[in-house]
Amino acid sequence: MQPADPLDLWQSPPFEATVRDGELFARGASDDKGQVFMHFKALEAHLRQSGRLPVNFKMVLEGEEEVGSKNLDAFIRANKALLAADVVVISDTEMFDRGVPSLCYGLRGLAYFQIDLRGTSTDLHSGTFGGAVANPAFVLAQILAQMKDRGGRVKIPGFYDAVRPLSDEERREFKRLPFSETRYRKELGAPRLFGESGYTTIERTTARPTFEVNGLLSGFTGEGSKTVLPAVAMAKVSMRLVPDQDPDKVGDLLEAYLKKVAPRTVEVKLTRMHGGKPWMASLDNPFVQAAGRAIERGFGKAPVFTREGGSIPVVATFQQELGVPSVLFGVGLPDDRIHAPNEKLDLGNFFNGVVASAYLYDEVAQVGK
Amino acid sequence: MQPADPLDLWQSPPFEATVRDGELFARGASDDKGQVFMHFKALEAHLRQSGRLPVNFKMVLEGEEEVGSKNLDAFIRANKALLAADVVVISDTEMFDRGVPSLCYGLRGLAYFQIDLRGTSTDLHSGTFGGAVANPAFVLAQILAQMKDRGGRVKIPGFYDAVRPLSDEERREFKRLPFSETRYRKELGAPRLFGESGYTTIERTTARPTFEVNGLLSGFTGEGSKTVLPAVAMAKVSMRLVPDQDPDKVGDLLEAYLKKVAPRTVEVKLTRMHGGKPWMASLDNPFVQAAGRAIERGFGKAPVFTREGGSIPVVATFQQELGVPSVLFGVGLPDDRIHAPNEKLDLGNFFNGVVASAYLYDEVAQVGK
Repeated sequence: MQPADPLDLWQSPPFEATVRDGELFARGASDDKGQVFMHFKALEAHLRQSGRLPVNFKMVLEGEEEVGSKNLDAFIRANKALLAADVVVISDTEMFDRGVPSLCYGLRGLAYFQIDLRGTSTDLHSGTFGGAVANPAFVLAQILAQMKDRGGRVKIPGFYDAVRPLSDEERREFKRLPFSETRYRKELGAPRLFGESGYTTIERTTARPTFEVNGLLSGFTGEGSKTVLPAVAMAKVSMRLVPDQDPDKVGDLLEAYLKKVAPRTVEVKLTRMHGGKPWMASLDNPFVQAAGRAIERGFGKAPVFTREGGSIPVVATFQQELGVPSVLFGVGLPDDRIHAPNEKLDLGNFFNGVVASAYLYDEVAQVGK
Repeated sequence: MQPADPLDLWQSPPFEATVRDGELFARGASDDKGQVFMHFKALEAHLRQSGRLPVNFKMVLEGEEEVGSKNLDAFIRANKALLAADVVVISDTEMFDRGVPSLCYGLRGLAYFQIDLRGTSTDLHSGTFGGAVANPAFVLAQILAQMKDRGGRVKIPGFYDAVRPLSDEERREFKRLPFSETRYRKELGAPRLFGESGYTTIERTTARPTFEVNGLLSGFTGEGSKTVLPAVAMAKVSMRLVPDQDPDKVGDLLEAYLKKVAPRTVEVKLTRMHGGKPWMASLDNPFVQAAGRAIERGFGKAPVFTREGGSIPVVATFQQELGVPSVLFGVGLPDDRIHAPNEKLDLGNFFNGVVASAYLYDEVAQVGK
């Protein structure tokens, strides 16, 4: 779960679930407490109906996903027998759109960093000292500006080397998804959409890697003016990765590039915050097919198959450590404002999701029989 | 007076004058409460000694200098008769170095701005939306990076048009000033000095204009990591100006350049915060000469003639509105940490300054007699 700040932008308290107009507002409503709760209700339905579950059910609840799941991988490696299973079901993804139930077969990975610059030992008066030394806030801008070109392409050498290209079939399928760039742009409140040239918005947000600035801080940021030369400047930056990029290797590439582009007028420190590998499933996996049928029964229509822009690093771990495929069945919506103030969950999707989850356990029980 | 933040870096409370090792520590100790108090003590000396003052003395104390002196200009214009004088003495400048009493004949002006960028209506999840829209923190970096070239020269078209070049004589005099780049660099704690190519550090900080980033703020800036696409990004930027640049015209140039370099993927807002005109005096003015003699009597050696990097906009106003020359006689030191934590004033300079000020009134009384 993400922090709730900035708190003053919440219309209801972030940690009091509040229903307005068929939607439930709270930090974690969609990402991911609401979706976890969906499975509790599906289990309850089975137990009330028949007093038993159709599958041997194991539940792992983990609360560190947003900060890199530092302990989960080790826990899985240390408890392979305990966790042994035929399939992992994770509900931490979104439907493609309202009314479009979805099954996710790909996730982006993540590599998150902090860049710290120091120019001088203390802040300085910009009149007395302005012109004498490099300004770390300006140097930070210079460095960041060199991370992407005008066409939105990342300039870190080698960054795209391991990127698996989109298949022609995927591009055709993505084009068939119901998507209005105009509506999407208006919902975001952006003057225009912008991303890597040569790719559609869906491709840019799910199947192509990114470089983003997540935070900037330097000098005086209060009301009014203070004529200060900042001593330090900080940026939080992160890359979304796609198969077969590796977060550690991307970190090495960034470190090498930083050394190349940073001037020697400031001290530069790169901190590797956390990372997660990207992931893709095979569409003909029987559990993926089973999940597709369950969703159709829960929502009354067959799901579309999508890739997602977010990261769930444990999916790669389950595959690696337990040899178990994952099914990503989620009921969030793209406008749920996850990670932002006023996060919400559509209650209609939640109720359909409970039904689909209940059927999913039945369908999974039939696989291989 | 500047704000005291960041408070946690002060070794003694900023608003309790504290003496350590012959220096007085407090916010405003050097800039500018201490230097104002110097004149009170000089007046007291005259009154105790002879019961009268050698000149008709008027004192203007103003507390808005650091925020643009919004009311001072209007006050002067509205009270020309009340303020009528032969000369203005302002003590808000520095000695060139410890043991080098100085008389300042030039000041830089200032033009201060805030740049606000908005990309989307709310912060967004960097996984779900990363790649779809321009990131205002990145665009801000792109914009700022275009403000200066690699040689430290400001790229805003027309920025240097009104700049009065340094005279050969000034450059010769500046070279004679006692100045060690190595010591200066070490005192600042900078890996190296850096500024506009073709100029020395003294020239860069007193007689050449600058463009500086005073503050940066965007997205998540706390401990750890938050995978957010910021909705907004903010920079505070300012230029130090030299004769004959005009802050309003420089604001127009920046506005035009911003329109040119900012992409249409974000909304850009430029706020003009405050400005002040640069200033230069004639070295053969009789009051400047009188001040030189007074400083020699107070400090036991003749002053050097310097220009200063800071701004005192009212100097230009006194000249314009009252037709009165200014004498800038100050006793601050370059390492006084004005505008920064642990600001201090050297008490030896303060006491010499009291004596010099007392003599200054005598010397001024003799001018034209």
